[in-house]
Amino acid sequence: MSAWLDEIRWTADGLVPVVAQEAGTGQVLMVAWMNREALALTAAEGYAVYWSRSRGRLWRKGEESGHRQKVLEIRIDCDEDVVLLKVEQAGGIACHTGRHHCFYRVLQDGRWVTVEPVLKPPDSIYGA
Amino acid sequence: MSAWLDEIRWTADGLVPVVAQEAGTGQVLMVAWMNREALALTAAEGYAVYWSRSRGRLWRKGEESGHRQKVLEIRIDCDEDVVLLKVEQAGGIACHTGRHHCFYRVLQDGRWVTVEPVLKPPDSIYGA
Repeated sequence: MSAWLDEIRWTADGLVPVVAQEAGTGQVLMVAWMNREALALTAAEGYAVYWSRSRGRLWRKGEESGHRQKVLEIRIDCDEDVVLLKVEQAGGIACHTGRHHCFYRVLQDGRWVTVEPVLKPPDSIYGA
Repeated sequence: MSAWLDEIRWTADGLVPVVAQEAGTGQVLMVAWMNREALALTAAEGYAVYWSRSRGRLWRKGEESGHRQKVLEIRIDCDEDVVLLKVEQAGGIACHTGRHHCFYRVLQDGRWVTVEPVLKPPDSIYGA
């Protein structure tokens, strides 16, 4: 039952980049990484489990914030080295900054300009 | 005018992963990589220029196939380590397999199942 995991071309570090896209809106919410265990758990549990490179451990998205991602679909690309998730984003907030998604800055006239509002202050999400 | 490029957290190899999303449909078309020069050219020319890791050179998307990507918007994520492009996909084909996009396989019952049609055979795109 894990042959599908063997088809993925993991990086030398055993990871694969994962795009999380909101099913209802089509918004690209975030890009994170999974290792084999994280992807297996994501498929088994139906909620996104990433590998936190900064913390060096599995990261059940929303474990602190409650902003879990229910996984509706898991796709792989033509090179088998990128995963695309269709998700429902609990709370409507995917980003640790308290925004809907992580891509809140757009390049305008040679500068990154923030164009998305903070929906909930991070210290009220994670505790001060 | 290149300060915005300095804000990106390039990998040790000097690359950043780039998600190309179709503006009209919201479809995630592909994920590829850019180096600093590729991203600078993308911004300057208004068409996606990637770094081909397999070929070790700049890759003007569509240079062979004609399937260029007109860039409408360039975004950066909260960690400054992923770029999101909103594009218009020439020919409606982003994938080298001749499909609309690269994420044409979905996980179903522990197998990757192809669910998107080939719109144009690759040998008619690239020559036999």
